[in-house]
Amino acid sequence: MIESARSAVVKRVRALRQKQTRSETGLMLCEGPQVVRELIRHRVELAVELYLTTAAHERYPELAAQAIGAGVQVELASEEALAAMADTQTPQGIVAVARQSPVALRDLVDTDTRLVVLLDEVRDPGNAGTVIRAADSAGADAAVLTGTSVDPYNPKVVRATTGSLFHLGVTTGVTLAAAVGALRDAGLQILVTDMAGEPLPTLGEALSRPTAWLFGNEAHGVSAEARALADRVVSVPIYGAAESLNLATAASVCLYASAFAQRG
Amino acid sequence: MIESARSAVVKRVRALRQKQTRSETGLMLCEGPQVVRELIRHRVELAVELYLTTAAHERYPELAAQAIGAGVQVELASEEALAAMADTQTPQGIVAVARQSPVALRDLVDTDTRLVVLLDEVRDPGNAGTVIRAADSAGADAAVLTGTSVDPYNPKVVRATTGSLFHLGVTTGVTLAAAVGALRDAGLQILVTDMAGEPLPTLGEALSRPTAWLFGNEAHGVSAEARALADRVVSVPIYGAAESLNLATAASVCLYASAFAQRG
Repeated sequence: MIESARSAVVKRVRALRQKQTRSETGLMLCEGPQVVRELIRHRVELAVELYLTTAAHERYPELAAQAIGAGVQVELASEEALAAMADTQTPQGIVAVARQSPVALRDLVDTDTRLVVLLDEVRDPGNAGTVIRAADSAGADAAVLTGTSVDPYNPKVVRATTGSLFHLGVTTGVTLAAAVGALRDAGLQILVTDMAGEPLPTLGEALSRPTAWLFGNEAHGVSAEARALADRVVSVPIYGAAESLNLATAASVCLYASAFAQRG
Repeated sequence: MIESARSAVVKRVRALRQKQTRSETGLMLCEGPQVVRELIRHRVELAVELYLTTAAHERYPELAAQAIGAGVQVELASEEALAAMADTQTPQGIVAVARQSPVALRDLVDTDTRLVVLLDEVRDPGNAGTVIRAADSAGADAAVLTGTSVDPYNPKVVRATTGSLFHLGVTTGVTLAAAVGALRDAGLQILVTDMAGEPLPTLGEALSRPTAWLFGNEAHGVSAEARALADRVVSVPIYGAAESLNLATAASVCLYASAFAQRG
């Protein structure tokens, strides 16, 4: 039982909130029962350590049992110690340390790949996580983060994916040009969203082709480089008086439009 | 110039963070240049007071000018006083007090109404605001909040709409049964989203009919009452391994599916 919020293990886990520590260790911090459950269910081989309060252990006994069975190190922690490990103010009594599992894009996509989401220069952790979750829901095979996009292993991103991070392949640390090259080599068309593009509902049959949807920065939209690399520039029309579309709304509409067309 | 964070006006504005004060006064708190701009542009008759820091006034001189021209009371505030008025930690130097403008549902919908979003028991301010923004983007005529849904004039909701609150009609404080009755009388079909429903892409032509989309509580989904009141129960299919759909993702996909079908 980890009692003290000042113990070495607490400091080590807590340090995973920092990008530098995550880069050096190749680890990430997973918080809350939903994310930890998806980690244990789908990618238990990535789990390294699991910490629970007594209350959380009583509430989620199966998580600890499955983790132990898979060789994960499991230990109780006091409320105080667990709160000190966590990034959230209400960590719900459960955190895990897991290995990051970035995959090289060329290992992630091939001619069977139908749907990919590419986030270029997306900075907000909540936005990135929500889009990864939407991509998972729409059945996407992979999520790619390029340029100075947020680290997908940032605890806020991990939480916002509600576990979808463990459902699809994730690539990070590649340039936009390299990512687009690999996706195109795998036979995917590159569709870039921009207000000035062709309206999404006019795409028709083109939507059923294998597709990578590229979304740009929340505030500035897609870059000139992204537009130049695209096969087509596509807009989600705004029919009302809204100034702009929320990134997650645009991504949800585009990814599902492809999923419906591909599976129709 | 309002100098002190303890002045009576600061306390009065700040009190609008509380539901009870909003109910008693019929006022709401609008924060940040984006929301205030949409208030001034679209519903300036609702604006009562506008406060800016000197820096914000230099950055957005047109907002103050337009507000003054429309008879709004405009006054500078110190950084400290403005921060004390605001709900956010970074209010960007500009807040407004505006009248709430709930509209009775029967005055909001008629046989020309094509698309409405109805939130029943939706509690999270960010979710409600994001859905109202998506509804505005998709060209919806109205947003209806029923049951114990969050107050649409909660400052967090107002911010999350990024001004869409001033673009479409908003009704609150009605029962679900009354709302569904008024919507149906206006000729709208009631589509309720639930994982157990007919898959959205199988709806075909039915999507082009005038429609009210009903979404339920984030955690518990739609109620039995909502399912019973619906014309059809519809699901947004999950093609990947995600456990559930984010409310904003489901709403974005459904609202745009209707918009595309109606305008196709």
